[in-house]
Amino acid sequence: MSKKPLILVTNDDGITAPGIRTLIKVMNTIGDVIVVAPDSPQSGMGHAITVNDTLFCRAEHIDNGPQKEYSTSGTPADCIKLAKHEILNRAPDLCVSGINHGSNASINVIYSGTMSAAIEAGIEGIPAIGFSVCDYSWEAKFEPFEGYIKSISENVLKNGLKEGTVLNVNFPKVEKHEIKGVKICRQSKANWVENFDKRQSPHGKDYYWLTGEFVNLDDGKDTDQWALENGYISIVPVQFDLTAYKSLDDLKSWKYND
Amino acid sequence: MSKKPLILVTNDDGITAPGIRTLIKVMNTIGDVIVVAPDSPQSGMGHAITVNDTLFCRAEHIDNGPQKEYSTSGTPADCIKLAKHEILNRAPDLCVSGINHGSNASINVIYSGTMSAAIEAGIEGIPAIGFSVCDYSWEAKFEPFEGYIKSISENVLKNGLKEGTVLNVNFPKVEKHEIKGVKICRQSKANWVENFDKRQSPHGKDYYWLTGEFVNLDDGKDTDQWALENGYISIVPVQFDLTAYKSLDDLKSWKYND
Repeated sequence: MSKKPLILVTNDDGITAPGIRTLIKVMNTIGDVIVVAPDSPQSGMGHAITVNDTLFCRAEHIDNGPQKEYSTSGTPADCIKLAKHEILNRAPDLCVSGINHGSNASINVIYSGTMSAAIEAGIEGIPAIGFSVCDYSWEAKFEPFEGYIKSISENVLKNGLKEGTVLNVNFPKVEKHEIKGVKICRQSKANWVENFDKRQSPHGKDYYWLTGEFVNLDDGKDTDQWALENGYISIVPVQFDLTAYKSLDDLKSWKYND
Repeated sequence: MSKKPLILVTNDDGITAPGIRTLIKVMNTIGDVIVVAPDSPQSGMGHAITVNDTLFCRAEHIDNGPQKEYSTSGTPADCIKLAKHEILNRAPDLCVSGINHGSNASINVIYSGTMSAAIEAGIEGIPAIGFSVCDYSWEAKFEPFEGYIKSISENVLKNGLKEGTVLNVNFPKVEKHEIKGVKICRQSKANWVENFDKRQSPHGKDYYWLTGEFVNLDDGKDTDQWALENGYISIVPVQFDLTAYKSLDDLKSWKYND
């Protein structure tokens, strides 16, 4: 009998979020599961790491599943570093992050703690997938996607991923029978149009809450945003070599002096 | 006479750091300068944004230069959003971030608050440059690079940047006469090998400090790391479309089921 794969699970909504509990349940059907996740929500943390503060980490026992669990005071990227270097005694065969409560499609990948954990794992050479559902609520439905999560994860375990890439998987907010299938996509061009809600503290100091509206600027049918808006699951292969190769020649033609 | 360009300056080491004070001085020779920067160091914040907390922002008067300055309680990415949507009444012609005390070359770009500010500006359609020097000390020398900072910034103001790209500029830790010139580079492949320093609090709780060693895995002479190690200034064009286009066909050949 072949050895079961070792699977590292993390997220950015915190270790008790329904999204990660679903992900743990699915991963328990595939392999041996270790959970190392933040002890509190870390949304919007991007690829933050904790360099100027202490990191706490403790064993947890949250449900009766066979997985081992640890919560940390760190960011999603910290969780991967702690897992790899302090908790695990061998490299995991797969790292899965999520299921995030809210979309990480399009430009959201840049701000995403969920994806930063997957990218951190990728940098460490671990095949990695971030899963997200386009529903920000704590009560988001994850059950419709369990089969696809298993299928996508097994594909990655079997086929591997190209060096330097991880997967960004997003699920549309639909019922199971409405899912149209899987689309392999590019990242849609979009931004957030911010709207700061300015208030005054009881002590007379101005402060702001960041709010904003997602604006898709790309009508390509090969984008993740199009797929999600049309009932498909989107998978975008994501790389962390950020070099804009097409710009190299332009920049070489400039004159630089001191 | 042509109108002076409007230049937004930020960083991640905090508004009083010597690096940003140098950058402000140079930018004052090029245009009208607005500074919106964190009120305290934000290193390692990656592309974090403040969504679950309040943001404070106040006018500052730090030196006698002609620039206008604001400090915020937010991250570098927050600073750009606040500047664009609350402080400025028109889009800046250029955004510069830094000068960071420490390298943002190679994989460091992923963890960098300095570069996240530049990328955030890029997402907002503002031509943007992150500047860093390969010296983590507060007393790092910035004077040798002032001429190049001006030259690179003027190039960007004159020529613009390709849509969806920003510049990651790193300076070697050398004296002025040792600078060999400018190299246009790709991001070197590297990672950090972490070493967690495990300690115990006075109350008996284990905790960790994240430390680590940068390991370059790429001996290409076209990389930023090679340039810096050989006395050159490195410029890498950076994109925020993270799609790994070369992986799309592979993934399309997989079978997915629910």
